[in-house]
Amino acid sequence: MKKCLGTHLLVDAWDCPGDLLDDPELVAQAVKDAIRAGDVTLINMSVHQFSPQGVTATATLAESHIALHTWPEHGYLALDIFFCGNKDPRPAIGPIRRTFRVGRIEVRKLRRGIQVETPELVEEKL
Amino acid sequence: MKKCLGTHLLVDAWDCPGDLLDDPELVAQAVKDAIRAGDVTLINMSVHQFSPQGVTATATLAESHIALHTWPEHGYLALDIFFCGNKDPRPAIGPIRRTFRVGRIEVRKLRRGIQVETPELVEEKL
Repeated sequence: MKKCLGTHLLVDAWDCPGDLLDDPELVAQAVKDAIRAGDVTLINMSVHQFSPQGVTATATLAESHIALHTWPEHGYLALDIFFCGNKDPRPAIGPIRRTFRVGRIEVRKLRRGIQVETPELVEEKL
Repeated sequence: MKKCLGTHLLVDAWDCPGDLLDDPELVAQAVKDAIRAGDVTLINMSVHQFSPQGVTATATLAESHIALHTWPEHGYLALDIFFCGNKDPRPAIGPIRRTFRVGRIEVRKLRRGIQVETPELVEEKL
């Protein structure tokens, strides 16, 4: 079986209320809640509010990163959850989905760092 | 035609010298060079060196984000370049590729925020 070094979820979510998406404190809290739900460790977080609208939060994790970008004018958010190792990133989606009352969601799962298959040494009974 | 809100490149690169991948100053400089090559605007950058090895850099951009994670023990790096709008993210790969003397590279391009097609109002000549 091929091994990989991490799992990356690319989440595109629509039909979210624009006022929620344009609130930097809510975005920061939602990312912190996602980090807790994902059982990962925050190293550094950057939150930025754009003019006239939109918020970006990037969280550096001991297990890679979470990034969240919002487009209030489209009721849309783009979420990335990249966890290294065998850590399952799916639980981290829940708090984002609930906080921003997501109507429609698309999740793409990509494996990162897929290692070339190494044949295992097996001893067969003859 | 369907419109999208951004373009995301997921780059997996192998066969890089481990000492280059484990140098946080080199990682920071490579990301800054990528930002310049991509002609985008840096808002905030976080660089972290892990023990016993590995470096992560996350850059918040006016145009979304760049994230770079290195695994020196595998000669591997995972690079994300997410640019909103029509900005082409491909030029930002070059500095990373050169700095870390990448041997083998895989680039996956994903469109983010694909908008549902809206029929245009057309006037036909009858």
